[in-house]
Amino acid sequence: MGKVVDLNCDMGESFGRYTLGLDYEVMDEISSANIACGFHAGDFMVLSKTVKWAIEKKVGIGAHPGYPDLQGFGRRNMDLSAEEVENLTLYQIGAIYAFAKANGANLQHVKPHGNFYIQIYNNAMKGDPSMAQAVGKAVQRFDDSLILLALAGTEMAKIWREMGLRVAEEVFPDREYNADGTLVSRKVKGAVITDHTKVVERAVKMVRDGGILSIDGKPISNFRFDTMCVHGDNPETLQVVRDIVQAFKKNQIEVKPMGSFIA
Amino acid sequence: MGKVVDLNCDMGESFGRYTLGLDYEVMDEISSANIACGFHAGDFMVLSKTVKWAIEKKVGIGAHPGYPDLQGFGRRNMDLSAEEVENLTLYQIGAIYAFAKANGANLQHVKPHGNFYIQIYNNAMKGDPSMAQAVGKAVQRFDDSLILLALAGTEMAKIWREMGLRVAEEVFPDREYNADGTLVSRKVKGAVITDHTKVVERAVKMVRDGGILSIDGKPISNFRFDTMCVHGDNPETLQVVRDIVQAFKKNQIEVKPMGSFIA
Amino acid sequence: MGKVVDLNCDMGESFGRYTLGLDYEVMDEISSANIACGFHAGDFMVLSKTVKWAIEKKVGIGAHPGYPDLQGFGRRNMDLSAEEVENLTLYQIGAIYAFAKANGANLQHVKPHGNFYIQIYNNAMKGDPSMAQAVGKAVQRFDDSLILLALAGTEMAKIWREMGLRVAEEVFPDREYNADGTLVSRKVKGAVITDHTKVVERAVKMVRDGGILSIDGKPISNFRFDTMCVHGDNPETLQVVRDIVQAFKKNQIEVKPMGSFIA
Amino acid sequence: MGKVVDLNCDMGESFGRYTLGLDYEVMDEISSANIACGFHAGDFMVLSKTVKWAIEKKVGIGAHPGYPDLQGFGRRNMDLSAEEVENLTLYQIGAIYAFAKANGANLQHVKPHGNFYIQIYNNAMKGDPSMAQAVGKAVQRFDDSLILLALAGTEMAKIWREMGLRVAEEVFPDREYNADGTLVSRKVKGAVITDHTKVVERAVKMVRDGGILSIDGKPISNFRFDTMCVHGDNPETLQVVRDIVQAFKKNQIEVKPMGSFIA
Repeated sequence: MGKVVDLNCDMGESFGRYTLGLDYEVMDEISSANIACGFHAGDFMVLSKTVKWAIEKKVGIGAHPGYPDLQGFGRRNMDLSAEEVENLTLYQIGAIYAFAKANGANLQHVKPHGNFYIQIYNNAMKGDPSMAQAVGKAVQRFDDSLILLALAGTEMAKIWREMGLRVAEEVFPDREYNADGTLVSRKVKGAVITDHTKVVERAVKMVRDGGILSIDGKPISNFRFDTMCVHGDNPETLQVVRDIVQAFKKNQIEVKPMGSFIA
Repeated sequence: MGKVVDLNCDMGESFGRYTLGLDYEVMDEISSANIACGFHAGDFMVLSKTVKWAIEKKVGIGAHPGYPDLQGFGRRNMDLSAEEVENLTLYQIGAIYAFAKANGANLQHVKPHGNFYIQIYNNAMKGDPSMAQAVGKAVQRFDDSLILLALAGTEMAKIWREMGLRVAEEVFPDREYNADGTLVSRKVKGAVITDHTKVVERAVKMVRDGGILSIDGKPISNFRFDTMCVHGDNPETLQVVRDIVQAFKKNQIEVKPMGSFIA
Repeated sequence: MGKVVDLNCDMGESFGRYTLGLDYEVMDEISSANIACGFHAGDFMVLSKTVKWAIEKKVGIGAHPGYPDLQGFGRRNMDLSAEEVENLTLYQIGAIYAFAKANGANLQHVKPHGNFYIQIYNNAMKGDPSMAQAVGKAVQRFDDSLILLALAGTEMAKIWREMGLRVAEEVFPDREYNADGTLVSRKVKGAVITDHTKVVERAVKMVRDGGILSIDGKPISNFRFDTMCVHGDNPETLQVVRDIVQAFKKNQIEVKPMGSFIA
Repeated sequence: MGKVVDLNCDMGESFGRYTLGLDYEVMDEISSANIACGFHAGDFMVLSKTVKWAIEKKVGIGAHPGYPDLQGFGRRNMDLSAEEVENLTLYQIGAIYAFAKANGANLQHVKPHGNFYIQIYNNAMKGDPSMAQAVGKAVQRFDDSLILLALAGTEMAKIWREMGLRVAEEVFPDREYNADGTLVSRKVKGAVITDHTKVVERAVKMVRDGGILSIDGKPISNFRFDTMCVHGDNPETLQVVRDIVQAFKKNQIEVKPMGSFIA
């Protein structure tokens, strides 16, 4: 019997005159789209188009809320209160929800974007769950059937699960992991795997084995995940995604929206 | 038997450090709040607070979508395509909807803001219904039970009604009307009535008679309305609202959210 | 003896994570850069880089003020008062001036951007000089040696000249002209010339003959210009610019910054 | 013989429809205005008006650059690179400079705003001078005669002085100080002095004695300053400023723009 995995990718990051990403092409390959909601990227025109594409291609629609910082693309850290975090998450979920509903579709998931995601993760790891909880609360108050995306095996996943929320744990096939299952910092040489063939092999191996080797070559125990994050910024990363999907087919791995299998 | 009318007022126009309007106090008097959605005014913190207040005070929650122009407060005309109009309306409805839903409440109505409202009205009067239709389409696609606010007796009301949408027609007790039921331009001397006692008398008379006199003193035929627009910017306008509500009580006029009586 | 002309091109239109235009390459060909100042496009990082490139490549530095509308890229009309026009021009000139001065350079010119430019032109043609005057006043108050770019042979050029300002009149080699010297509207079929060879030939002919033929094939009398507007958005338009410059060389036409020859 | 001190106050923090501060009235009392430049507050209309008022009232014109975060009023920390800090400072200095120059006036000083100021100070205290240096470099490159405002007796003052820049050291009469001359954190009870009479007395004592007592009642050695920061947000703080100026007069303390006495 084959395995099942979700492929998620950031989408809808164009803005006005500025085009970013090969969204339409990438949507043929992936199963879940994290769609920018107009704060770190995207706008009401881009949202409208991107949500329609996701519906057309049967891709799960996800809110991708980020910091209110278009110039910084949500990648500059901003100190926000828990209340601000909760409300900016709600606002952005509502914005994308309008386009899903207007097209007769539903939201599937919520994935915090960029530095917003990193900060939630970092704070949770350091023992401060308030930011994760604020995001969880926004989801809970809006629609508790929405799935939250978390870095696999981390505190943020645990916090959301403890709140009774549905969680999809994600891995990055192009990133090395530490022995404790955390990502190797981008500052470490070799942390990001740039050899495309290797990334594809790794993606297959991750799903088949249901686990990964750490950067030191040792298996990480109890590592499990539901979705894999891929990139569609340019023709090269699009090719990687296509190659991953091809390799999945050869290996009887089915790509399905997380909403179809997350409890 | 008494009469019933709705009182609507613009709310949630504060932004970050900037406070505008006596929203909390005004909500004790009115029945419907037009709440800014973060484009011409308001932000996710202000929205959160304002929606909670509306629920607490049993005031109908309305989206108040405006032009994406905070500096101009949505009062500078912007040329937008019909598609832009539809999508910016959807986006802003979604944003406020999130806060209504998160608090277990529903949206009641949608009132375009400032120059967005004026432009819809102007274009419709000149025979171009596309802007009104774009707004109507956004409402229809999101939730066709939402009520649209239109200038009483105008083409915009007609267009929306022809689309099968619920429409509440509004009057301004502090504005003079032309013989054809249109507003006298603000550029005409005396177009805006500044004598508070007169405004209060006028408000009562409008509801009791179910009609108004034009600036020339003649009754405007077939003039009807459902809601009256009041202002809560400062202590003086708040006092006018309080006086109107007092006068309504004396005259057995009941103030009720439009959602309770619009077909 | 050879002829001299200026080549101007819009630059610095990237924003944050969004890249637009082949600025660095185009600057090898042109003599004057119209640099976005952070309102319709550009930001403080892009400005810094673009101004440095212009200095390195000995290209005249121009402010390219636009409407405060990043999403619309300054191409949606906005109704602004004369005072707003004057102050937004001043603000944007100051912003770019800081980067010129910080690098020991000077501003050469000011060219209003996109719909801001079109609106100034349109209003002036219709007999309302106030918008052109507001821009002229901003330039005059800041530094009356700055050159203003105007559509060749139009009222906007005349208005600025009457204010005692330096004016460079510009033509578009890829646009057809009416018999009265105005641009054929983009809505008319054939108004924009897309055949690159034709555009290059036209550019040479325009400079050599010091005039142009109208869309009806008749010479436009008294048509003169100082600068030619080219585009650097993509590899194709870059090639057109390169071909124009090559053809200019063969025809002894020298490309020089307008500041070196405008009286 | 009397003493001389500068009084500085944040100004120009209104935005579009939103009014903040009693700028026009406060300018009668103070000698230096820190004017918002459109990032954390202010816009091109407010800048225009505020700079004119400063000239009319003979108040020194200062740039008050802040984080690009209007909603957060520049009070939410943002992680910026040194290059971003340098360029956003340059951009904002240029913006206000345009209005000074257009009115025939000059800039006097630069004071980083809100959390931008605090972060420069904090980083410098922790041994990281890069942020202070980036601001210093922007000033140096634009005009090295501009005075930089620094918290009295701190590393940020030292860093800028070592760069050869003019520095004005500032105190807060309404804040308690630690024995080492640093501000007592706002989180500590009593850190902000709310008794107006006490603030006025303290202001006089600070100037007369050329020093202050720490929160523990001991004199802080080697404490000196050039300018005192006051507030003009509301009628009450305006009254404090008026009372300080009155008390200064009685005590032969002259209020003069820092530009007239800083070396």
